[in-house]
Amino acid sequence: MTMQDILQKAKAAAKKAAALTTKQKNDILLQMADALTCSAENILRANEQDLQNAQGVLPTVMLDRLRLDEKRINAMADGIRQVAALPDPVGVVLEQNCLKNGLTVQKIRVPLGVIGIIYESRPNVTSDAAALCFKSGNVCILRGGKDAYHSSKAIVDILRGVLQKAGVDENFISLPADTSRQSATQLMTAVGYVDALIPRGGKGLIQSCVENAKVPCIQTGTGICHIYVDKQADFQKALTIIHNAKTSRPSVCNAAEVCLVHQDIAQAFLPLLQEKLTNVELRLDPIAHSIIGGKQASETDFDTEFLDYILAVKVVQNAQDAIAHIGEHSTGHSDCIITEHEQTANTFVAFVDSAAVYVNASTRFTDGGEFGKGCEIGISTQKLHARGPMGLEELTSYKYIVRGNGQIR
Amino acid sequence: MTMQDILQKAKAAAKKAAALTTKQKNDILLQMADALTCSAENILRANEQDLQNAQGVLPTVMLDRLRLDEKRINAMADGIRQVAALPDPVGVVLEQNCLKNGLTVQKIRVPLGVIGIIYESRPNVTSDAAALCFKSGNVCILRGGKDAYHSSKAIVDILRGVLQKAGVDENFISLPADTSRQSATQLMTAVGYVDALIPRGGKGLIQSCVENAKVPCIQTGTGICHIYVDKQADFQKALTIIHNAKTSRPSVCNAAEVCLVHQDIAQAFLPLLQEKLTNVELRLDPIAHSIIGGKQASETDFDTEFLDYILAVKVVQNAQDAIAHIGEHSTGHSDCIITEHEQTANTFVAFVDSAAVYVNASTRFTDGGEFGKGCEIGISTQKLHARGPMGLEELTSYKYIVRGNGQIR
Repeated sequence: MTMQDILQKAKAAAKKAAALTTKQKNDILLQMADALTCSAENILRANEQDLQNAQGVLPTVMLDRLRLDEKRINAMADGIRQVAALPDPVGVVLEQNCLKNGLTVQKIRVPLGVIGIIYESRPNVTSDAAALCFKSGNVCILRGGKDAYHSSKAIVDILRGVLQKAGVDENFISLPADTSRQSATQLMTAVGYVDALIPRGGKGLIQSCVENAKVPCIQTGTGICHIYVDKQADFQKALTIIHNAKTSRPSVCNAAEVCLVHQDIAQAFLPLLQEKLTNVELRLDPIAHSIIGGKQASETDFDTEFLDYILAVKVVQNAQDAIAHIGEHSTGHSDCIITEHEQTANTFVAFVDSAAVYVNASTRFTDGGEFGKGCEIGISTQKLHARGPMGLEELTSYKYIVRGNGQIR
Repeated sequence: MTMQDILQKAKAAAKKAAALTTKQKNDILLQMADALTCSAENILRANEQDLQNAQGVLPTVMLDRLRLDEKRINAMADGIRQVAALPDPVGVVLEQNCLKNGLTVQKIRVPLGVIGIIYESRPNVTSDAAALCFKSGNVCILRGGKDAYHSSKAIVDILRGVLQKAGVDENFISLPADTSRQSATQLMTAVGYVDALIPRGGKGLIQSCVENAKVPCIQTGTGICHIYVDKQADFQKALTIIHNAKTSRPSVCNAAEVCLVHQDIAQAFLPLLQEKLTNVELRLDPIAHSIIGGKQASETDFDTEFLDYILAVKVVQNAQDAIAHIGEHSTGHSDCIITEHEQTANTFVAFVDSAAVYVNASTRFTDGGEFGKGCEIGISTQKLHARGPMGLEELTSYKYIVRGNGQIR
């Protein structure tokens, strides 16, 4: 099937997807979850092929993103089950008013329609995105990267098999075989076919979408996340949180990339930080370098999403200075302050304009699952439509239904 | 000031705008309203200049959009007072959860930031947009059309005067002097400066934004609105509603452009329609033409926003056929069914996928003021972010504030 065929079939399927009942959708989702675990071997075989192709091509942290095992497949299936268990957002009456002139105005939640997703090498995105789009009454076109193609194809084949068996349109979920740049561009410019485009991936992909998309698009994911250690920080909390935010999974967007340290505690704190992060390369600004020595930060290090065991470290004058630095260098994903001082914390959360602003907790929590959304289709770093982790509700729109008895204006 | 200067000043002003208190904003808005009525003469003088320049250049209905009088200026001032009276959306806690791990997650409403508005020849857009952006804590850049430049400039000068007198940043509201296509393009591509772009105007402007915008953009306004007269319609209601929707203000986007008539009643209804709409040119499909004669519709008439005393008329087989026609030809703005049959009405509102779907009422009600939003900054015809009339809440985003005590993942 060409992309044009896929787009046409998706558009035609959208009306049918919007009309599915909650029970129909949940039954099918549970069948999808079971089918994934039952066919785990097929998925692992396909994944092995992807891993072999990627060997020596992708860096180690990227291979980690690509690799599936039974545990991760079970997690994918559990993710789908969690989506099935969540309330159906479609049809919910968001507002209802009776106007003075007797008109009743209802605002009700409806699916977006056709959602295009462009992503890279994480095959679990395939099942997460498909489940969330399906539950929210949407049709999805999953334009995955070539690195994970075989894994994604195995997953989508299983999901479409379930749709077919259930007697509904299998075009609710599609995966174009063409993983070229051209197919991505086709999806970005499919005005009239795609109601929302969600890119998930690195800076290059996101920028390409921002540059080229002519359909409504949500900028997601790039995370240059900061942790600011205030002069009134609890050092133990600070060390534990930074260690977790940097090293628990460095390849993901909610991992910390930059640590800012208040000048009054830098002398005491930085040696402890160095000691805690033995497997992390610290890239130090001149003041931090004068205190603990080591590798000096280059100019670009405070604007880089390392996605690796690297942390840029800078000494700042105070919380205002930290807020200003974050305002200039953050991608608006997740930023954190470690402090025991309530007022400083309040100032920080008021003036840091990011999707998630933390006080004394790891930035790694910015995640649909952690935020109670079941799973997520991406983390928006723009302000229009949705911000932060996007779950079911963020995949819907609404319409107004106005009922009258001959009213005119 | 160049557009680049304006963008930089706007971005710097955004943080200050977000920090204004509700009282500060309301006091300033009331002063703005008073200042507009007090300086009505200045505005009318500037408007006269615009009207003279437009004489013989713009068609009559466009001159109507451009023309101001004391009544319209008072309406603008009242619009601002209504905005002042509305609740402040900023800072509202939308959700609050305590997670099992002890984290508290708050979702709070925040301003979008810098809003770019590109519009054409309606000077009242200037004051509406400025008031709504200001109340919602946003900074606005009002790129008005050259036809209304003097009127808009007079209005913005008054508003900025009030800001200056109040001791706050006058760059909360700006109007570029450059009304060239290039300045519009600069605004559309100001990535990193503009958080949301809202075009208000005709098809050409909207398409240009969809094609060229690299900043998040909301498609607004083009309205090919349909009224379907069902076989179980009350003819009197149908005639009154169509007359109102077509002729009360034909130059606006919520005016009806197409009338679909059930075949079973066409013979009886069409002569009455013709009689009622004496000042409207009917463009008839072959069946309607065979019944009442007159001007035949061309191929494009069912895809044209006439914005004039013209109505395309088509006879359809049944409600399904009407829904299908609307699905194919509507711009997703406002569509209406006239019927006394509840089930047919329910099917229509369920399957017509437009921002506002009406039963037995004029499409002219699709309006922020009518919907209780005070006034409006535009009517979204896309599904992402906002749909239908956009008021204060639609000019905001949200952020998550997560407070912990050392939690890690």
